[in-house]
Amino acid sequence: MSFLELHDIRESEPVPGYRVRFVHSDSMTVAYWEIEAGASMPEHSHMHEQIVNFIEGEFELRVRDEVRTAGPGTVAVISPDVPHSGKAITRCRIIDIFHPVREDYR
Amino acid sequence: MSFLELHDIRESEPVPGYRVRFVHSDSMTVAYWEIEAGASMPEHSHMHEQIVNFIEGEFELRVRDEVRTAGPGTVAVISPDVPHSGKAITRCRIIDIFHPVREDYR
Repeated sequence: MSFLELHDIRESEPVPGYRVRFVHSDSMTVAYWEIEAGASMPEHSHMHEQIVNFIEGEFELRVRDEVRTAGPGTVAVISPDVPHSGKAITRCRIIDIFHPVREDYR
Repeated sequence: MSFLELHDIRESEPVPGYRVRFVHSDSMTVAYWEIEAGASMPEHSHMHEQIVNFIEGEFELRVRDEVRTAGPGTVAVISPDVPHSGKAITRCRIIDIFHPVREDYR
C-alpha cells in the first residue's frame, strides 16, 4: 500500500461539525478534518503525541491553559495526556498527526 | 512548546528547488516543503516510516517501482527503507511526516 486518494476513504463525523478521513500506517495516524464554522471540540486527552497542522481557516485551540487563534502556518505540538479543546471560528481544514496509531479511530 | 508559526522557523534547501521548514516533536518530524516546478528529488531511502501529504500542485512520485502523479488529496505511505524519488511537475506544497524523528534533519 503506497498510494491512497482521500476521496476513496470513508468519511465519518465523530463530533458534530467535524468530518474526517483517517489514514493509518504502521506507526502513525493522520486525520484529515473538514470543520464547520462554529463547531466545538470538547476537552479531551489521549496517550498519543499529536501535531496539529492548520491548512485553511481560523481555529481557536486551547492546549492545557494556553489559548491561541491558529491559522495557515500555525503548528501545535501536543504532548501525550495533555488536555486540549477547540472551536472553529471559520470553516477549517486541519491535518492532525498522531503517534502511535489511534487504534480507537480504526 | 505547544504553538509554533512556520514563518518563525529557519528555511533550508537541502536539494535544489526544495525549500523546507522542519518541526520535530519527541516521536515525529514534519517537513513543510515548497518545491519549484521541475525540481527533482534523487532516489533515496531511510529507516523512518514516511507519510506524504500533497497539498498543492502536481508531483510525480516513484515508490520502489510504482509511479503516480499525485495532487491535492493524494497520500503516499512509504515503509522504512523503501527507495523513493520524485519530480515536481508544477510548483508544489507537500507536508511529509516521519517516525521516528529525522535526527539527520535537526
